[in-house]
Amino acid sequence: MRMYDLISKKRNGGELSEAEIKFMIEGYVDGSIPDYQMSAMLMAIYFNGMTDAETLTMTMAVAHSGDMVDLSGIEGIKVDKHSTGGVGDKTTLIIAPIVAACGVKVAKMSGRGLGHTGGTVDKMESIPNMQTSLSQEEFFKVVNTTGLSVIGQSGNLAPADKKLYALRDVTATVDSIPLIAVSIMSKKLAAGNDCILLDIKTGSGAFMKTLDDATKLAQKMVAIGENAGKKTVALITDMDIPLGHNIGNSLEVIEAVKTLRGEGPADLTEVCLNLAANMLYLAGKGDIEKCKEMVKEVIANGKALERLIAMVEAQGGDSSVIKDTENFAKAPYSLDIKAEKTGYIKAMDTEMCGIASSMLGAGRETKDSEIDFSAGIILHKKVGDYINEGDTIATMYASKEELFAAAKAKYMNSLTISDEKPEEQPLIFARVTKDSVEKF
Amino acid sequence: MRMYDLISKKRNGGELSEAEIKFMIEGYVDGSIPDYQMSAMLMAIYFNGMTDAETLTMTMAVAHSGDMVDLSGIEGIKVDKHSTGGVGDKTTLIIAPIVAACGVKVAKMSGRGLGHTGGTVDKMESIPNMQTSLSQEEFFKVVNTTGLSVIGQSGNLAPADKKLYALRDVTATVDSIPLIAVSIMSKKLAAGNDCILLDIKTGSGAFMKTLDDATKLAQKMVAIGENAGKKTVALITDMDIPLGHNIGNSLEVIEAVKTLRGEGPADLTEVCLNLAANMLYLAGKGDIEKCKEMVKEVIANGKALERLIAMVEAQGGDSSVIKDTENFAKAPYSLDIKAEKTGYIKAMDTEMCGIASSMLGAGRETKDSEIDFSAGIILHKKVGDYINEGDTIATMYASKEELFAAAKAKYMNSLTISDEKPEEQPLIFARVTKDSVEKF
Repeated sequence: MRMYDLISKKRNGGELSEAEIKFMIEGYVDGSIPDYQMSAMLMAIYFNGMTDAETLTMTMAVAHSGDMVDLSGIEGIKVDKHSTGGVGDKTTLIIAPIVAACGVKVAKMSGRGLGHTGGTVDKMESIPNMQTSLSQEEFFKVVNTTGLSVIGQSGNLAPADKKLYALRDVTATVDSIPLIAVSIMSKKLAAGNDCILLDIKTGSGAFMKTLDDATKLAQKMVAIGENAGKKTVALITDMDIPLGHNIGNSLEVIEAVKTLRGEGPADLTEVCLNLAANMLYLAGKGDIEKCKEMVKEVIANGKALERLIAMVEAQGGDSSVIKDTENFAKAPYSLDIKAEKTGYIKAMDTEMCGIASSMLGAGRETKDSEIDFSAGIILHKKVGDYINEGDTIATMYASKEELFAAAKAKYMNSLTISDEKPEEQPLIFARVTKDSVEKF
Repeated sequence: MRMYDLISKKRNGGELSEAEIKFMIEGYVDGSIPDYQMSAMLMAIYFNGMTDAETLTMTMAVAHSGDMVDLSGIEGIKVDKHSTGGVGDKTTLIIAPIVAACGVKVAKMSGRGLGHTGGTVDKMESIPNMQTSLSQEEFFKVVNTTGLSVIGQSGNLAPADKKLYALRDVTATVDSIPLIAVSIMSKKLAAGNDCILLDIKTGSGAFMKTLDDATKLAQKMVAIGENAGKKTVALITDMDIPLGHNIGNSLEVIEAVKTLRGEGPADLTEVCLNLAANMLYLAGKGDIEKCKEMVKEVIANGKALERLIAMVEAQGGDSSVIKDTENFAKAPYSLDIKAEKTGYIKAMDTEMCGIASSMLGAGRETKDSEIDFSAGIILHKKVGDYINEGDTIATMYASKEELFAAAKAKYMNSLTISDEKPEEQPLIFARVTKDSVEKF
């Protein structure tokens, strides 16, 4: 078998066989297939796509390039959740405790911030002394004791994905739907959970800018999960507006705690209700309506917040900041942002909001940059709100005063102010299962 | 400027600017742009093509990556000819002397055999002691004295093309019409002639299998030549049947000499008449009909053959083999091939005929293989001929008897025998100028 022939076949619109895809991934990982052949292949895939069979085979090959985590040391059904990334997306910190409080285990590996989007592991590390790197034994113990654990990706998970992603990143082949599906699902399959809930974000703050692309990606990913024997559902949720009010690491933990107390913003609460209910549904806890009731109950009776506190303590974190979020270290500087015009906020370029927060210190400029956990933005006004010139519409937090000017300019640029009240958009656009796309 | 952005632009169907293309070619040659980015770009070009402006800029950038030959040391108008390669294509050895005999200089760099096709330099080297590697001074002297010289590619001609071709060859991006045009025309522009005649072959023995593709390639190449200030015309000629009867190095020289004596096969004579007349036309010798008369005259009066003899002698070759082709060394073994069926030869897979000849020793298996100059095939019967079972339809020549079996099988496989007489195909399909495609 020659890589040349595989490139040629894909370029001409052919379908690669299982043996061919395995040869390609194994050869790429062991170095016998060079980068320049793989990048030609990736570009051919960008143009000609991949069938469901090809996508599944490639996902399995990439997953099997490293460790396949065995979660059988944790009792019961384990449900994973993956978000394609957004701005202000602190849902994991809310729904993992909720699901655990309802009796379903969450043994989750999360990522760090990437580009304009935040990462759950970074957010958790804003809690003093919180450990996000546990041995497998410790990880299992935390899950078995508290019902949940969220840690950083550990071990040698899907090394082929790491190598492929690095190549895609420099050859303009990142935004291919089948390649995105392979990348995410290979890690999900390697992580060893029984069920997978996918949260596919769409809109100006998401990697998928259109509902159509988000739906295609959701269908590809659900097909891979189901064909690999995992119960898989995807929700397509809005990221045309930042989720909740807080952007930035400790600011997002604070908002997560608020939401677990039943005092969170309506949009965040609604999205978390749906995500958590779908995770419970996947674990066989009943129909969606019944699962939603369970979610509401564990928020109302405080059991969900208890689970978060238990996990934080089990992972060495200082739970006093969860019990009273006033205990979080505060940024030394803050700046109120005033409206420069009167009218409705018609749109927010959410990617730009994320970049503004990153510029304040909440994100990484390069892979090795340090994060300022207390930096970020609180949005007092969002899309649909009417604002008067001079109103405080947001507050920015940073450790250096000189960071405000550029971040403020970026944020102001993200806003569209109009005399017209914008139409309300749904928070959840669709629910995708292996058999259906249910639109809301 | 970042190569990433250029790949992304081309992938999205954009047009690269002159500065961008120069950056890309210079960076690729100096190593600052790695193979894996260039191969992604080449695949994006494969899918999205290139505009005429892009193709011209890239051709110029590739040409200027090495020496630009200055032919001003040769008096008069210099006309180049390029064939895209075929089987039995010995036209250069015929038309260069014809054109020189008509008073137009031919200072030509030719190639060696590639795949199933032969190369003029290999054919010339079948003449004992013939030198094909001359210094520039010697080259100019031969042209100024004899009117023509054909040598191998010398110096540092378009090194970017060498590097790009090697990459295309392993990433399935060879058969892209704009990339083929860039590759050929960059070398033609670097070679420094005033006018360029292109012989674009089409059919089963050509790299362009369809007339449509051949026409597109011809148009691209003529546009590049004209936009670079060279008078350029392309003929699209048939390579669905081997040209002439002889395939193999000295066998082809023998047939070339025969044609220069006015005793060549009709198809080869006709193609050479048209090619030579178009070269004279490009050099301003009059309209095509007048130029054809000139060609016929220098064949009839022996002046064309004189030019070939003069060039052979000026390049150190033993002209006794030209004066009497019986003096050529003969292959120690020959095998008559007998028809196994009765009927018309309806088709010959010409690429397979070329491979059969190569298997006998006339071509190279690898870049470093030695050529057997006397090996090859003489076709006694071609497409359209009626053959009876047992008739000798071809004779094979080789230096080792054991080479015959496989070559014979290959050759027999190339034939389609039918009860129906096939329709006659034109030898010359079209003439492409910057303004028109004239079909015949």
